[in-house]
Amino acid sequence: MTQDPVFTNGAAFIDGEVVAMIDARIPITDTGFTRSDLTYDVVSVWDGAFFRLEDHLDRFLRNCRRLRLTPPHDRDEIREVLIGLIEVSGLRESYVEMICTRGPSVNGSRDPRTFVNCFYAFAIPYVWILEPETAEGMDAVIAKTSRRIPADSVDPTVKNFHWADLTKGLFEAYDRGADQALLLDHQGNLTEGPGYNVFAVIASRLLTPATGVLEGITRRTILELAEEQGIETWATEISEADLRTATELFATSTAGGVMPITRLDGRPVADGQVGGVTKRLRQRYWAVHADGPFATRVLPSSPHGPGHRF
Amino acid sequence: MTQDPVFTNGAAFIDGEVVAMIDARIPITDTGFTRSDLTYDVVSVWDGAFFRLEDHLDRFLRNCRRLRLTPPHDRDEIREVLIGLIEVSGLRESYVEMICTRGPSVNGSRDPRTFVNCFYAFAIPYVWILEPETAEGMDAVIAKTSRRIPADSVDPTVKNFHWADLTKGLFEAYDRGADQALLLDHQGNLTEGPGYNVFAVIASRLLTPATGVLEGITRRTILELAEEQGIETWATEISEADLRTATELFATSTAGGVMPITRLDGRPVADGQVGGVTKRLRQRYWAVHADGPFATRVLPSSPHGPGHRF
Repeated sequence: MTQDPVFTNGAAFIDGEVVAMIDARIPITDTGFTRSDLTYDVVSVWDGAFFRLEDHLDRFLRNCRRLRLTPPHDRDEIREVLIGLIEVSGLRESYVEMICTRGPSVNGSRDPRTFVNCFYAFAIPYVWILEPETAEGMDAVIAKTSRRIPADSVDPTVKNFHWADLTKGLFEAYDRGADQALLLDHQGNLTEGPGYNVFAVIASRLLTPATGVLEGITRRTILELAEEQGIETWATEISEADLRTATELFATSTAGGVMPITRLDGRPVADGQVGGVTKRLRQRYWAVHADGPFATRVLPSSPHGPGHRF
Repeated sequence: MTQDPVFTNGAAFIDGEVVAMIDARIPITDTGFTRSDLTYDVVSVWDGAFFRLEDHLDRFLRNCRRLRLTPPHDRDEIREVLIGLIEVSGLRESYVEMICTRGPSVNGSRDPRTFVNCFYAFAIPYVWILEPETAEGMDAVIAKTSRRIPADSVDPTVKNFHWADLTKGLFEAYDRGADQALLLDHQGNLTEGPGYNVFAVIASRLLTPATGVLEGITRRTILELAEEQGIETWATEISEADLRTATELFATSTAGGVMPITRLDGRPVADGQVGGVTKRLRQRYWAVHADGPFATRVLPSSPHGPGHRF
């Protein structure tokens, strides 16, 4: 297929039409913007195939229902839209986002029940929170200036753009010479970072926070792969003190997969190298992207393989 | 001045150009949308004059600094833009919003320090959270399903679009047959409602929450007017139990001024009529909108007076 160069940087679906990213705009009156009243999901395309597309659609549509949002397209139509964005852009490694907003306020109305909900989507080149070439891993701090928004204020399992707490943590990280921030909840337990779940190897067991976090699809994949690998794994509470005893730490996200965290609060995690459990799971994570039950193929697999190999 | 009918519903300032509201769109990649990374302010125009414009500009620019946002226009230019929106739209009673966002992410970057911040503004016909004709006042509930986002997660004094907790409360209110929701903090004290501060007359004193809320300009105006009127007033903690003993309740917002709350959790507040303190302050609030130190006149005062009189 020959791609129109206008879609080199990606393609978006706005108001029922496919447009170039540069033309992808939403109404300033959409309460998805002015009230951050929305949910979204991000699915990846790897070597021409979506990864766990149906799981992402499940979560997205469940979260729409939880917010009483009715997307103007059904599941089959949304799947078609996402596939179409990859076909038109030709992006073989892509970050694909779908968003359902409450929609524009009409004449300043404040009654969200009366708004027409909107659906937007876009596909851009794959996003790495940590570039895979960065062998040394991420340098994180435990944020002191910001606590994660509690679940009884904003439910973190309904994927949302309420990121001011995470963004504040990120600025603190930069100020402290690091590049990532892990946020604690109001009880002092680990939650998540800006756009990722966190795993820790503590006393030879793999742990990740059970509650107060997004139930990430990458997180779920890692929990499944760890079980398959016979690694003892628990979703549980992780206190700040526990976190400081970790011998391995990594982040998981659709935007980058498994990303080692090798420094915490200015000190190396164990010897500061990427640990064995992290390496094994990262390798398995990318291996299961090949054709199989998780793949929804759109473009032919490249004879040169995916854009990056682990 | 003859107005172009394209601006009847208002005018917006986007990327340095004045456009009709229907054309007012922002990039879907702006992290003001995808991370709700922004601050904003709303100022009103009444009978052709801005009300407390310089106070709103003070707060807006202070909040930009607190989030490390640099609007692409200075204070004088922003003032000019806002005045220009009223001139071009001819809106004599208007709701005027200014927004500074972190700006679009470039190539999926997650480093907000590298983004070019954006400024948007729009002027639409004046918004009433409670239509002034609704003499009976608002019917509010104390939300049970949602707690206000705490200040150590997202600072409520930096005006923001993190409204999921407020929106959830609003849906609860509708489910319970009411139309407004008052949110408590995690200690069980009153905070605010969707877009407004709250005042209560309790034991003959006028009270409003001291912390954990937006420091509203209308709130400040009411505190000043109450002092001028010799009404004993305190910014203090208000527990849920205290709130239930209130003999008057009202909301304050740039979108509607002083709005009586005459029912709480299905029961009338006192006798369910708009109380004396509320009436007096509402009248004074609108009276000080006439030319004076708070007014920045743009359009000539109408011989018929403003759009609504109290």
